[in-house]
Amino acid sequence: MNMQHYPSVILEDAVNEFAKLPGIGQKTALRLVLHLLRQDKSDVEHFGNTLITLKNEIRYCKMCHNISDSELCLICGDKTRDDKTLCVVENIKDVMSIENTQQYRGLYHVLGGIISPMDGIGPSDLEIESLINRVKTEPIKEVILALSPTMEGDTTNYYIYRKLSQSNIVISTIARGVSIGNELEYADEITLGRSILNRTLFSQ
Amino acid sequence: MNMQHYPSVILEDAVNEFAKLPGIGQKTALRLVLHLLRQDKSDVEHFGNTLITLKNEIRYCKMCHNISDSELCLICGDKTRDDKTLCVVENIKDVMSIENTQQYRGLYHVLGGIISPMDGIGPSDLEIESLINRVKTEPIKEVILALSPTMEGDTTNYYIYRKLSQSNIVISTIARGVSIGNELEYADEITLGRSILNRTLFSQ
Repeated sequence: MNMQHYPSVILEDAVNEFAKLPGIGQKTALRLVLHLLRQDKSDVEHFGNTLITLKNEIRYCKMCHNISDSELCLICGDKTRDDKTLCVVENIKDVMSIENTQQYRGLYHVLGGIISPMDGIGPSDLEIESLINRVKTEPIKEVILALSPTMEGDTTNYYIYRKLSQSNIVISTIARGVSIGNELEYADEITLGRSILNRTLFSQ
Repeated sequence: MNMQHYPSVILEDAVNEFAKLPGIGQKTALRLVLHLLRQDKSDVEHFGNTLITLKNEIRYCKMCHNISDSELCLICGDKTRDDKTLCVVENIKDVMSIENTQQYRGLYHVLGGIISPMDGIGPSDLEIESLINRVKTEPIKEVILALSPTMEGDTTNYYIYRKLSQSNIVISTIARGVSIGNELEYADEITLGRSILNRTLFSQ
């Protein structure tokens, strides 16, 4: 589809920019650009300026490395949150997912990835050193490891666990088990096996 | 999904801009924005500026009303094209589709829509008056009506046909029949019926 005959270089440029985005092909990109052409000039200008602002003004929180508008993110700056509990996550989306549950009132630490030798990502590429520093200097009592239940996630969990094992804090991981609402017969064996081993007392 | 807790207003703005696009929800928008955050600053700035340029600098050809970078589009300005044949299409995408076939060397006329009383679109909302003027003033010998084979397309075809019937030109429509590569049994009855009525002499 790259052999399209665009009637305009400006149109083609805009289509190519959209087509660079993941999951957006040439046809979808054209549809989006033609949609923008039908919008008000001020709306499209605002869209363009938002993208420029995004890259120029966004910052990363100096404490937790989450995306932020200022030096300290809204969560780290919130004095009502529990600064004794620290939840370690892989990326920004995970912070948003956990925030959406409204079940956690502690602070976060965003690693910026997980240890993955296949992708050439080692501990030094991640915010692990700064995590260890935070545990040393902040009044943290518990570190919750909330990484994906994959091989890479487990490796990273273990690496962090080793690094923090001298510290006098509780290290926990999020519970793994059958998903709520899922049929038991579709749960994989490892998950089901673990959910039996790690069974909890029944409560209403 | 609108209750997301975004860690940054700038991030949220960018996500909301993408989520305004047709077919892009809040989750996809976030994925696209996080992708852009991983790109080079200059690339994202270029994307933003392209959008601003798009809306500010794009023009419509004064002859055929196709999207253009200048007063006259590349097709209307191309002296090697057959200026005796005019193909009437609904929109810019249709011009691109026909150009991609590489089977047509004449000029185009973009109506900017089709007559659709249901959507409140009448003949005066479309570039029909300018089409009639072109037929009067240009050396056009044939007008090909290449509108969608729908009720609205047929209505528009008929309206244009009536308007041009006094002119001494050939008025044709694109052939309708079974699609090439399609199984005959899946063709709808009307299409199949017409394709028998409008059969053409066999040629190799």
